[in-house]
Amino acid sequence: MSTLRRGIPSHAKKVFAGKIFEVWQWEQKMFDGGVEIFERLRRPNTAQVIAVVGDKILAQTEEQPDSTQPFSSLPGGRCDADEDPLVAAKRELLEETGYVSDDWVLWKEVNPVSKIEWTVYTFIARNCVYQQEPHVDSGEKITSKPVSFDDFLTLSDDPFFYSPELVSHMLRLRLNKQEKEKFRQALFVGNPIS
Amino acid sequence: MSTLRRGIPSHAKKVFAGKIFEVWQWEQKMFDGGVEIFERLRRPNTAQVIAVVGDKILAQTEEQPDSTQPFSSLPGGRCDADEDPLVAAKRELLEETGYVSDDWVLWKEVNPVSKIEWTVYTFIARNCVYQQEPHVDSGEKITSKPVSFDDFLTLSDDPFFYSPELVSHMLRLRLNKQEKEKFRQALFVGNPIS
Repeated sequence: MSTLRRGIPSHAKKVFAGKIFEVWQWEQKMFDGGVEIFERLRRPNTAQVIAVVGDKILAQTEEQPDSTQPFSSLPGGRCDADEDPLVAAKRELLEETGYVSDDWVLWKEVNPVSKIEWTVYTFIARNCVYQQEPHVDSGEKITSKPVSFDDFLTLSDDPFFYSPELVSHMLRLRLNKQEKEKFRQALFVGNPIS
Repeated sequence: MSTLRRGIPSHAKKVFAGKIFEVWQWEQKMFDGGVEIFERLRRPNTAQVIAVVGDKILAQTEEQPDSTQPFSSLPGGRCDADEDPLVAAKRELLEETGYVSDDWVLWKEVNPVSKIEWTVYTFIARNCVYQQEPHVDSGEKITSKPVSFDDFLTLSDDPFFYSPELVSHMLRLRLNKQEKEKFRQALFVGNPIS
């Protein structure tokens, strides 16, 4: 799934560091032998969770301080510096929903934008169990509710679904009955992910 | 299709301007009344073209100076400063393929990343006619060839297809026979785009 990821070359220089984004530049040799300044960004990776609770999946409705309307999302968020994506996924699931799981598997690893070093890790957390009250920070208002497998896949039709990098994968499952059934069994029966 | 676009607030400040990306920041009031620095980017918009030549569509194979392998793409590129997206689409089509059209329609307007002010405009250019030799700059190696409508839609399965923001729309057409036929007629018969 790493598709067009090219990364930032080792000789690039960091020319700006913001709150989220770093800007890197380097001299790139062109096809005609000339040189131009190329630019690419780096930002913290994202970890998100398909959280299985019984025969359902946790979907969220979320607001952020600058959002103009609520939007649909999955539990997840930014990885802290040097934080392993799985650790981040577990932390975000607990903070946002109060659920925990001891059965995790990585489903997709997507680099959404070729000019940004940024990976979105989507984990499956099977057999989630409610442990404590959710506790989100001052930048989030989140409610979660369990939805059916089909309703989860139909989130790919929601123009306000916050995980655009997953939409094509969800549509592919809707296109292919066999793959869809294999994925359903991976979530609810515990079969290996294909 | 503007989905989660939020834009950069008018009171934001530009804290960095790179070759492609600008970084903007502002003080955002949080849900608890506190204030945090929020950050968003701006970059030039992109214009790309579904170019219809007879009963085919122009698909490209492209290399860039820092790409590790060739990738599939559609004609298109960055809009110049203050350049209208349609003007940019016509310019890029001519530069990259040598084709022109006098029958253009906007198909999709997508904001791929919520934290970046960046719109990808996808135009349909019907009845394209070859006018002159392609002329690409030193940062591109491009060959184009006409492919069938079905082969065009199947580009959505190509992990090296360079227009990820189109993949979900192409998959949706493959999911819905009626919509697919309407789109085919919009391309080749000249029916209005739905």
